[in-house]
Amino acid sequence: MIDLPGLARAQASLIDAGRVLDRANMVPATGGNFSMRLDEHFMAVTVSGRHKGQLSGSDIMVTDFECVPLGSTLKPSDEALLHGQLYRLRPDVGAVLHTHCRAATALSCLVEGDELVLEGLELLKVFEGITTHEARLRIPVVDNSQDIPALAREVEPRLPQDDCHVYLIRGHGLYTWARDMTRCLYQVEALSALFDCELTVRRCR
Amino acid sequence: MIDLPGLARAQASLIDAGRVLDRANMVPATGGNFSMRLDEHFMAVTVSGRHKGQLSGSDIMVTDFECVPLGSTLKPSDEALLHGQLYRLRPDVGAVLHTHCRAATALSCLVEGDELVLEGLELLKVFEGITTHEARLRIPVVDNSQDIPALAREVEPRLPQDDCHVYLIRGHGLYTWARDMTRCLYQVEALSALFDCELTVRRCR
Amino acid sequence: MIDLPGLARAQASLIDAGRVLDRANMVPATGGNFSMRLDEHFMAVTVSGRHKGQLSGSDIMVTDFECVPLGSTLKPSDEALLHGQLYRLRPDVGAVLHTHCRAATALSCLVEGDELVLEGLELLKVFEGITTHEARLRIPVVDNSQDIPALAREVEPRLPQDDCHVYLIRGHGLYTWARDMTRCLYQVEALSALFDCELTVRRCR
Amino acid sequence: MIDLPGLARAQASLIDAGRVLDRANMVPATGGNFSMRLDEHFMAVTVSGRHKGQLSGSDIMVTDFECVPLGSTLKPSDEALLHGQLYRLRPDVGAVLHTHCRAATALSCLVEGDELVLEGLELLKVFEGITTHEARLRIPVVDNSQDIPALAREVEPRLPQDDCHVYLIRGHGLYTWARDMTRCLYQVEALSALFDCELTVRRCR
Repeated sequence: MIDLPGLARAQASLIDAGRVLDRANMVPATGGNFSMRLDEHFMAVTVSGRHKGQLSGSDIMVTDFECVPLGSTLKPSDEALLHGQLYRLRPDVGAVLHTHCRAATALSCLVEGDELVLEGLELLKVFEGITTHEARLRIPVVDNSQDIPALAREVEPRLPQDDCHVYLIRGHGLYTWARDMTRCLYQVEALSALFDCELTVRRCR
Repeated sequence: MIDLPGLARAQASLIDAGRVLDRANMVPATGGNFSMRLDEHFMAVTVSGRHKGQLSGSDIMVTDFECVPLGSTLKPSDEALLHGQLYRLRPDVGAVLHTHCRAATALSCLVEGDELVLEGLELLKVFEGITTHEARLRIPVVDNSQDIPALAREVEPRLPQDDCHVYLIRGHGLYTWARDMTRCLYQVEALSALFDCELTVRRCR
Repeated sequence: MIDLPGLARAQASLIDAGRVLDRANMVPATGGNFSMRLDEHFMAVTVSGRHKGQLSGSDIMVTDFECVPLGSTLKPSDEALLHGQLYRLRPDVGAVLHTHCRAATALSCLVEGDELVLEGLELLKVFEGITTHEARLRIPVVDNSQDIPALAREVEPRLPQDDCHVYLIRGHGLYTWARDMTRCLYQVEALSALFDCELTVRRCR
Repeated sequence: MIDLPGLARAQASLIDAGRVLDRANMVPATGGNFSMRLDEHFMAVTVSGRHKGQLSGSDIMVTDFECVPLGSTLKPSDEALLHGQLYRLRPDVGAVLHTHCRAATALSCLVEGDELVLEGLELLKVFEGITTHEARLRIPVVDNSQDIPALAREVEPRLPQDDCHVYLIRGHGLYTWARDMTRCLYQVEALSALFDCELTVRRCR
């Protein structure tokens, strides 16, 4: 097992994030995957096919941003490529979470175009650079695909933009990223509330 | 009390499954029943009338696949016949869970025909043999009956099919089965999210 | 403090029921009240104005079925009269639970007449005497009133009927009763699922 | 660190309130803020930008009712001004809670005017002075603003009224206040149930 500086701390953070997100019903079965940047070349990422509420250190591996494993014969999640892409394109990103938030998945099925816009909600301020509820958060929505490199190519043009903080994969779930894991978890909590509000308002109007 | 190889491990798994499913609100009152295959003739199955969130070893008994008790004077759940049927028809099945998942019950009341089809959702991949969200999961929906052998006869034609992983009894709940209990619990988690998404989308459209 | 046979056991059961129902979000603020029969004259009942998730022995008092306290200067809940009424009219009743189940309260506001009928649902079998989902459970719905004796008079004609297991007070909550506290808690769990299903089906049709 | 009489007790109450409200999903990310009156000049209030489910003593500071810190270089939440305003205008107020209750936020988006009226619900009796479900609770709804003094000016005319117990900020959350923290938490619990009922009834009609 490789030992990079920060790996033990990253493992502890990822294990803890898994427990929190499992209690919140956001990672059913073996769904979801998480990662943290270790340095400018490597990330710690969850191994494929594990339940995220019951992670241990051996369920987290190191790969480079193209998902080539370092010192491990385990397989990272196929979707790890989407994590590596974010670390490659955005030097400010330190943590990435992919969850199966129920409201996100339902909304992604209801949105017809390639974008969901949230506005007028205080919790939007959870995102870096947003200082008022009057901001509009533009969230790319892409069709799901089992061809992960194709998915990566589809979202790639949007990711370098500073005001892009989250995207949805239709019928699948959300990806969000932040400077560190604490902020990334805040975003997941806030997005759950934001999407829930959006769904409730759509139902009642 | 009979002692078959694997019984103690099966009891521990069933007790644990009960706690998990109770916390998830899926086994109200004495609802739901669970089982695990012990070998090619016998299964461990929950005794009738117990609360599934508070099981102990004595709440789990051994019967053959026709529900004849082995070394016990207790009564298995009437519905144990539906468990035995699955072990009889499907040598690949190691665990069966029947839960009163709320979204499943509500959907079963809303579906008018004898089938519910889920498609376009990533979590479908929880089922063996499904490798893409583009698959269509066909879920038989049968009318409820207190005549369990009649219920068994009604679902029997569908069960041998490899792509049949779950069925709904209208106004009652779901049955799902898998190679082992871990996978079976994953399916229950995934189905709850899948049915929930389906209900939300139906409400908003 | 009076000491009747069975009081200590009743207190322990009531304290435990409070914790369970609070975790299930069914007794917000100081809402809800619970009781158990001690004998043919007396009941143990929750004191007025306490949070039901944090009960201790001193939050439970003894009164007769007209709510006259025995060995206590505390005040029982005004609604204790509705508990005493059930013990008086129904010798088979050993426990009564009043909760603010959210689905029950919402449904009671939506029902226009004086009755809600549930049918076709397996969980109806939780009630004594119901052996098939084909039964129809007729649930009286009465308008709320701060005049508890008037409320009692309004429900009185329905209570002696063996097939009456629960009633709703509009915009307020539910009362249900059973032979013992275990069965009464099962009924509360089942009713929450039943009302939830009924609401979801109404929303989607 | 300043030490006013009652500060340690206030810190303990605020930390505990944070845990309760976090478990209830009412303070996502760093949302929400809480306070308690210390005397006729000062309040204990949560520091800006902390997660309310994980508060420790150092996350709570003392300010006067204009939010000038006492013995601290930390920054109180911008919205602390809305807390101070309540202590200034209402000598009977001992605790203030601002939460991001999901049903409150969704309802605030759906209400078109500047008021939401709740009526006919038993839980309204949680509020001081309300003794019957027949009361009408008039809840001011104000548009959100990042200009907190402007927000304060907008709600100011309503606050001195004895029958004003809560207001909503559109797309943001609720403020409620009471004599002490225990009652204030009761109000938050009751409001969650009340708003939830109101939303469900609106959806089904």
